Amino acid sequence: MPEPLAPPSDEPLAADVDAEHERVRVALAAVADELGARAAAAGGDAQQVLEAAALMAQDPAILDDVRTRLESGVNAELATWGAYAAFREMLTAMGGYMAERATDLDDVAQRVVARLRGVAAPGVPQSDEPFILVARDLAPADTATLDLEKTLALITEDGGPTSHTAILARSKSLPAVVGVVGLLAAVEDGQRVIVDARAGTVELDPDDAAVAAADVERTARQSAASAPITPGALADGHRVPLMANVGSPKDAAKAVELGAEGVGLFRTEFLFLDSDTAPTVEQQTASYTELLAAFPGKRVVARVLDAGADKPLSFLNDAHEENPALGLRGIRALRASEHILRDQLTALANAQAATDAQLSVMAPMIADVDETEYFVALGRELGLEVVGAMAEVPSIAVLADQVLEVADFVSIGTNDLTQYTLAADRQLGSVAALQDPWHPAVLRLIKMLGDAGGRAGKGVGVCGEAAADPALAVVLVGLGATSLSMSASALADVRAELLTVTLDEARERAERALGARSATEARQLAAGSSAD
Amino acid sequence: MPEPLAPPSDEPLAADVDAEHERVRVALAAVADELGARAAAAGGDAQQVLEAAALMAQDPAILDDVRTRLESGVNAELATWGAYAAFREMLTAMGGYMAERATDLDDVAQRVVARLRGVAAPGVPQSDEPFILVARDLAPADTATLDLEKTLALITEDGGPTSHTAILARSKSLPAVVGVVGLLAAVEDGQRVIVDARAGTVELDPDDAAVAAADVERTARQSAASAPITPGALADGHRVPLMANVGSPKDAAKAVELGAEGVGLFRTEFLFLDSDTAPTVEQQTASYTELLAAFPGKRVVARVLDAGADKPLSFLNDAHEENPALGLRGIRALRASEHILRDQLTALANAQAATDAQLSVMAPMIADVDETEYFVALGRELGLEVVGAMAEVPSIAVLADQVLEVADFVSIGTNDLTQYTLAADRQLGSVAALQDPWHPAVLRLIKMLGDAGGRAGKGVGVCGEAAADPALAVVLVGLGATSLSMSASALADVRAELLTVTLDEARERAERALGARSATEARQLAAGSSAD
Repeated sequence: MPEPLAPPSDEPLAADVDAEHERVRVALAAVADELGARAAAAGGDAQQVLEAAALMAQDPAILDDVRTRLESGVNAELATWGAYAAFREMLTAMGGYMAERATDLDDVAQRVVARLRGVAAPGVPQSDEPFILVARDLAPADTATLDLEKTLALITEDGGPTSHTAILARSKSLPAVVGVVGLLAAVEDGQRVIVDARAGTVELDPDDAAVAAADVERTARQSAASAPITPGALADGHRVPLMANVGSPKDAAKAVELGAEGVGLFRTEFLFLDSDTAPTVEQQTASYTELLAAFPGKRVVARVLDAGADKPLSFLNDAHEENPALGLRGIRALRASEHILRDQLTALANAQAATDAQLSVMAPMIADVDETEYFVALGRELGLEVVGAMAEVPSIAVLADQVLEVADFVSIGTNDLTQYTLAADRQLGSVAALQDPWHPAVLRLIKMLGDAGGRAGKGVGVCGEAAADPALAVVLVGLGATSLSMSASALADVRAELLTVTLDEARERAERALGARSATEARQLAAGSSAD
Repeated sequence: MPEPLAPPSDEPLAADVDAEHERVRVALAAVADELGARAAAAGGDAQQVLEAAALMAQDPAILDDVRTRLESGVNAELATWGAYAAFREMLTAMGGYMAERATDLDDVAQRVVARLRGVAAPGVPQSDEPFILVARDLAPADTATLDLEKTLALITEDGGPTSHTAILARSKSLPAVVGVVGLLAAVEDGQRVIVDARAGTVELDPDDAAVAAADVERTARQSAASAPITPGALADGHRVPLMANVGSPKDAAKAVELGAEGVGLFRTEFLFLDSDTAPTVEQQTASYTELLAAFPGKRVVARVLDAGADKPLSFLNDAHEENPALGLRGIRALRASEHILRDQLTALANAQAATDAQLSVMAPMIADVDETEYFVALGRELGLEVVGAMAEVPSIAVLADQVLEVADFVSIGTNDLTQYTLAADRQLGSVAALQDPWHPAVLRLIKMLGDAGGRAGKGVGVCGEAAADPALAVVLVGLGATSLSMSASALADVRAELLTVTLDEARERAERALGARSATEARQLAAGSSAD
């Protein structure tokens, strides 16, 4: 797809400041309208991303800054560009989540400048034929409004597994491989390419046999996706409830439609992120009740606020930590501001009382039995019935026997568990090779949790991205996972894969993977037949 | 001790710019001389810190900035203050190691302003009686030049275990407890206080019995310190070589004098930190040979460059990582710039050939067998005989069986291992409670390494701060550590403590600590008699 607009010229402002300011205001409003309309059409995660972009186009501080720049004699395009560049720099300096939003600003700025120029905004070209989209990266607006009838798959040179592009592609069930180094230099328009999003590979110029094999695979996966929705189970009938990860009550309908047997991870950050203060107990109660009401008789596992690291909150976190991922986050931050935690648990207990869902509550970043006891005791005091811990910090796996005496269940967050076990930032491309939940060190820690859960007769769920990988889902069950939770769009694939193995076979695969010397070898050993 | 100087007034500059600039220049030069002289007198780590401070007083950019400020009509004191404040902000923005240096600038600025004012520089008051020094924090210049005849102990309200104050106090064997919240409000001049640096506690207004008990303990420790230097061993004769951690060749003499049976951690960063490029093979060979020559017939374990995290190098690291502790550091950075690693290993092999020391080489941050194989193969290719891995990343403990098939030895870096296992930044006060090597999760990972080493018949050393805690040293041996390395000043205490237990007793203590539910409980259980 085409590269971005050329930057504006630095010709001085020739026209009247007020007139040019008005021209920029109109362009900004038009872009905000356009992004707002796309947001409404997109729904889900995409909607939130686009709504945020629309807000960025409407920010009055931008218009003020543009006026200052116009008054200093800069032309309208360059003034707009400069105002967004300054905004971007500010976000980048804030780091983490805000810094990731900074790239979204470029897209907004380009759209505004395109309007000022009277040209089309950069974006995905139209095509009558189905195509595989190859790009440096996609703006959220592009990803969110892709023509899914025509777009077979998406490959980008930039971006990591947690970039917007990757998250949005996943939420649309669009096969995508991101962060392919050297991609743009290697691929030309019209070239034949096979994209295997499951393996994370891109094959250039495949021969006819490879294409035929890929077609067979694609058809098989499509039929799996349209297979009847049955409760999650292995071939021998061993039940493995398949649940959905949801980010807000409005994700509930899609999860139910795709056959989620409940919610394995209800992220509650959405109520907190846009505010300088925590929401009231009443606001929280209303929102949690809305979500729980969508799952009568089913299990919903709510995670209390996971602030800190890439999601800092001004009223809870210190923005100046050197390594925020190793900082005062999760239960640590909540314990330091216990009134916020009490309010949230109270609201969750209210929602539990008001609905028929089976609510479980868990806290992020629990490291040991002391933090477990603290959280479980507070939860019970406030009327919650099932209280557990996220397993993300390596210590909790090493101490799983102690923690599972106290917690009612644990749920493994594979992304963070992998990050800490390998000491490799999950957002950092240069250490991405270590950030693989197939790594045998991670699998061994999961087994410690699974074994301890089995001995204690308590549930050990997995709610990290790993559960959405069908081959890994089987291994996780073999390691002792009793339920799996994932993006709703991944449920069909995982459901189909689980039905192909018995519990004994899953355990054999897990056993082989545990002996692997690398993530790659673990994948291979798990895939190899048990007769090997 | 007195609080810092009052800040300068904002009266406008009354005198001639050139004259005032000259006055500042003279004051800066005098402070640089004074700090340089103190550096030469101090030696060791203190010397480096003071030399850096002297450089900060001489920085020509400061004088230029002062002139600009004088020319804008600001008085000399305020101009100096402002120039250092701007410098400080720059360092703080750089984060990590540089940000820690920022506090040193305040001390320099205060000294210069005191000279301009013609008053004494702030600092430790003189006393004829021995005293316990209580302060908000100490400037490096103060800590480095304390009168050790008079100063019995040091307590500060600010600072963490890795602050300058803590490091320098340790290097001088001065009992110190840092980061005591609320200290200054609670303690008055002349009050009676017991400081137990080993337990990290401060007792206010102790009764006479407590003082008597503390005196007995102090006498016992002093006699241990003056006990004959024997090879490290348990009461039953089980050998545990006691080695020293050294930061540069000039630390060698002190280590030998205090009975180090070799070097368990030779940090090689000192050659790299002050430069924009890596030192040449010749420069490195000369320096490594100097160190090895001080230990004929003894074992020296050199760690290859540990760049990244709090010690970034411009030619090796990306300064813009969000979480540098989880970034491209240690072996990862070296593997990405292999020529630097090859040069260093070549220089180490040269030094091995030129001396009679038994050189072992290890790499920091090794996560798994793939990285172990890479490093061991490269070391052997370049002529090194004994090649091993630092155990700092939790995954290496979980995969210890695989790694010890390939590595000749492992050496446990307890500080980083604790940091990652608990996901708690070792530099961050708000999560300091989780940063405890006594944490049972850490002890269990160490046991995995010890067990795997025992099975493979290979050495498992400990070179983190944990080895310097006598009670923990016993537990580490019980967990399978085959050698311990520490600050040379800690050798006597650890040597004495090891002689009080048999291997069976050490293992019993370790077993009890492994079952603990917290670091505090582990300490207590290890200390409890085995008949409990």
